Amino acid sequence: RTNERDLNEPLTDHAEGQLFLTEAFKIIVDEVLRKGTDVKHKVCEWKEPEELARLLDLELRETGEPQQKLLQRVRDVAKYSVKTSHPRFFNQQFAGMDYYSLAGRYLTETLNTNLFTYEVAPVFVLMETEVLRGLRQLVGWTEGDGIFCPGGSASNMYAMNLARYRLFPEAKSQGLYGLPRLAVFTSPESHYSVKKGAAFLGIGMDNVILVKVDDGGHMIPEDLDEKIELTKSQGAVPFLVSCTSGTTVQGAFDPLDRIADVCDKHKLWMHIDAAWGGSVLFSKQHRHLMKGADRANSVAWNPHKMLVAGLQCSALLLKDTTNLLKHCHSTRATYLFQQDKFYDVNLDIGDKSLQCSRKVDCLKLWLMWKAVGSAGLAERVDKAFVHVRYLVEQMKKRDGFHLLGEPEFVNVCFWFIPPSLRGKEGNADYQEKLAKVAPTIKERMMKQGTMMVGYQPLGNKVNFFRVIAFSPLISQKDLDFFLNEIERLGNDL
Amino acid sequence: RTNERDLNEPLTDHAEGQLFLTEAFKIIVDEVLRKGTDVKHKVCEWKEPEELARLLDLELRETGEPQQKLLQRVRDVAKYSVKTSHPRFFNQQFAGMDYYSLAGRYLTETLNTNLFTYEVAPVFVLMETEVLRGLRQLVGWTEGDGIFCPGGSASNMYAMNLARYRLFPEAKSQGLYGLPRLAVFTSPESHYSVKKGAAFLGIGMDNVILVKVDDGGHMIPEDLDEKIELTKSQGAVPFLVSCTSGTTVQGAFDPLDRIADVCDKHKLWMHIDAAWGGSVLFSKQHRHLMKGADRANSVAWNPHKMLVAGLQCSALLLKDTTNLLKHCHSTRATYLFQQDKFYDVNLDIGDKSLQCSRKVDCLKLWLMWKAVGSAGLAERVDKAFVHVRYLVEQMKKRDGFHLLGEPEFVNVCFWFIPPSLRGKEGNADYQEKLAKVAPTIKERMMKQGTMMVGYQPLGNKVNFFRVIAFSPLISQKDLDFFLNEIERLGNDL
Ligand SMILES: Cc1ncc(COP(=O)(O)O)c(C=O)c1O
Ligand SMILES: Cc1ncc(COP(=O)(O)O)c(C=O)c1O
Repeated sequence: RTNERDLNEPLTDHAEGQLFLTEAFKIIVDEVLRKGTDVKHKVCEWKEPEELARLLDLELRETGEPQQKLLQRVRDVAKYSVKTSHPRFFNQQFAGMDYYSLAGRYLTETLNTNLFTYEVAPVFVLMETEVLRGLRQLVGWTEGDGIFCPGGSASNMYAMNLARYRLFPEAKSQGLYGLPRLAVFTSPESHYSVKKGAAFLGIGMDNVILVKVDDGGHMIPEDLDEKIELTKSQGAVPFLVSCTSGTTVQGAFDPLDRIADVCDKHKLWMHIDAAWGGSVLFSKQHRHLMKGADRANSVAWNPHKMLVAGLQCSALLLKDTTNLLKHCHSTRATYLFQQDKFYDVNLDIGDKSLQCSRKVDCLKLWLMWKAVGSAGLAERVDKAFVHVRYLVEQMKKRDGFHLLGEPEFVNVCFWFIPPSLRGKEGNADYQEKLAKVAPTIKERMMKQGTMMVGYQPLGNKVNFFRVIAFSPLISQKDLDFFLNEIERLGNDL
Repeated sequence: RTNERDLNEPLTDHAEGQLFLTEAFKIIVDEVLRKGTDVKHKVCEWKEPEELARLLDLELRETGEPQQKLLQRVRDVAKYSVKTSHPRFFNQQFAGMDYYSLAGRYLTETLNTNLFTYEVAPVFVLMETEVLRGLRQLVGWTEGDGIFCPGGSASNMYAMNLARYRLFPEAKSQGLYGLPRLAVFTSPESHYSVKKGAAFLGIGMDNVILVKVDDGGHMIPEDLDEKIELTKSQGAVPFLVSCTSGTTVQGAFDPLDRIADVCDKHKLWMHIDAAWGGSVLFSKQHRHLMKGADRANSVAWNPHKMLVAGLQCSALLLKDTTNLLKHCHSTRATYLFQQDKFYDVNLDIGDKSLQCSRKVDCLKLWLMWKAVGSAGLAERVDKAFVHVRYLVEQMKKRDGFHLLGEPEFVNVCFWFIPPSLRGKEGNADYQEKLAKVAPTIKERMMKQGTMMVGYQPLGNKVNFFRVIAFSPLISQKDLDFFLNEIERLGNDL
């Protein structure tokens, strides 16, 4: 076929392509942004996988399809996808959306460049630096370093690698052979990426030592100190404490100042996984939750969560000013990071990364930040806290809602106790029955598509709901709806 | 401020937001897709970093900005960014664009969901499975597994972790302590991510054993066999051979069948880094370059490179049918991967990944594949080879172009010998002078913005250009322009 075509004619027809893109854009706005955020429409259109596969006709074939059919496919993908911006999507640590961020994402996708050298990404090399500076300032650092990573898990793993490198730079070339066993300290309520990281980095999940938490889910510094001593006495070498600002399930903030004291004492790298909670730093009212953050060595913070910057947007922030990130990760590939370029090659930041191709994740955050200012982002954070306060008060006024504890952040964890179980706490099968309530309600809400919220067990606590309210698209009405809907779906259980 | 606002009013104004997005979309189409692909406009608008920072006014402030100003910012970001879809952008292993893929990317960004559970990504869990199946079929596997990773570097690292886990599953929990030194084999022309991975995984860069290559840059299987024996005799344990289909600089394809024989003999995991070259599998004419690929254990393939699916799109494909990916990576977080869901929890694929949040990278590829079919993708690959053939023939007809060797793929590596150096190969300072030619020409082309192409040294070969021609937006005219422009920029050197 190739030879039939004139080589002087590109394969792509721009007029046809731009028409398609414009039509697709209209469908996207209508289906996802208009209907998908309208409470008169469903959050999800549940289908069993076999049926969905049939409806979508996913198979990839030899020949292409006409434009009208492709536009229908765009519509179908939108239709059967979950509307994560819908005001009744309370299921995850992402929800809602921001139009400025979204415009930034379209621009990023269209420019399609790679954040490794100044020559291909002049704007974004400078912009990432500025956004990182802005985030670091909120942590309380006037200097430092950082990088955007493909998610908070990756940011946490980077921190682990940096901490190891600082202590044992020879591990980069020689590996862990001949080194003593290394140990990481974190709480059982920390994110699972700490364990995944330990496994991946060759440290091993068993060498992630779990420090006790109090009832609210906060790491206990005294236990940290003891566990460090114990671990040392067993011949292992502690090198990292990974504390959490905003735990995944309960939204707890570990006591940073007291943990920093322990890290100082033992000269350990202090990492804060603030993937979830970091955004409180924007708020004058709530930033005290992270008091002591400036004493850490590194902070992971995901603007793709509470700040609704859009997936993926995760920053690893470092206090370091010795170029540790580059020393730790560089391999000095000469095909990309030539040293005889005509501009300052320190602008070629790619060798700081473990990635080669690296998406531009800063533009969406930058544009949104420019649009609403630090004040606007602070307002969103503050409003989320107000919403949560309202939700909690309403729960207390109703019979069936039993909080796990007072929320510290925007996660509200609660059991819904259906009428048949109220007052039966003493029964032998109470816990067993309670454990089945959340899954049943969840199934019903998904199949009806009215809303989405997650549940989980935690330690010895049986399945409870975790509702997360922070989207800038929600209002009190949605929270009232939430409570009514849980009752409607669960009152016969 | 929060309390002043009625809590019954969401912070977001949809009408205003949708208007902004629509205006931004028009600017993006005009600046990036229309002007940015038009040869009458520049590939890049070079600015010194200080000046660019001033022009962009990057600083993040307390208060937000009006819409008109923000639209100007969209225009400025587009203006000063490199136009990677421009027909004269030959600088990297990505270039060009596809309108269907781009529509898929806008849809992905707008839906903003996360590929970890069926409940939040029903369409994409099924779609990713289907796309992976399609790619695996091209490798020659009717069964298997796989996952999309944030880039080829990550895909290569996943393969390394899987290979290690297969041999030493206890490393996941216990780390590398007590294990013998592990060794990886690859060629010096393989991608630097193999070394970065070895450092990150705790294996160490020194334990990446470099196998000799022939003149064309292909790994020599006999040397591989010898190095494996040698390494074993030194007490280390070989566990992985990472060969390359389409090396980064020269575009060489390692001899897979013969390497597979060596891997079989030593029972080693055979990984193919086909991040760059994998796309030849679409072409009946060129797929022989990867003959033997089906004998590998894993293949990394980046549709974001030659298939212009857009950054990031990288698939790790596995022959494994024992759920190794999940066993190796899972930590069974109960808040996300509840086992008591009402649907088949095998659809919750997130625990196969090292990421938690994971972008949807399959939709753009799927939509493009649906649009042009396997035949259309094959045509693009075939046409790229035809273009390269043309380019090489033209180079041979001109005086100043000296090829490093006959290209095997779409990388054309050549020195431009300016008139003053022709016939001076014997001079003592010839190499030194030649080494300076490419950087000078590069500086001139960047500052004039007429085109972009990369250069690098390799082994004892001084700086040469690597021109990569595969974008579906180019035609012979662009290749002629390329040659003329190199001469124009370099003839006085
Ligand atoms: C506390 C915490 N840390 C890290 C992560 C991981 O971030 P990501 O999903 O971007 O990998 C999460 C996400 O759930 C989290 O809640
Ligand atoms: C052969 C090869 N492997 C792997 C990679 C890395 O892929 P990525 O840039 O997506 O990390 C590249 C990219 O340059 C490559 O050329």
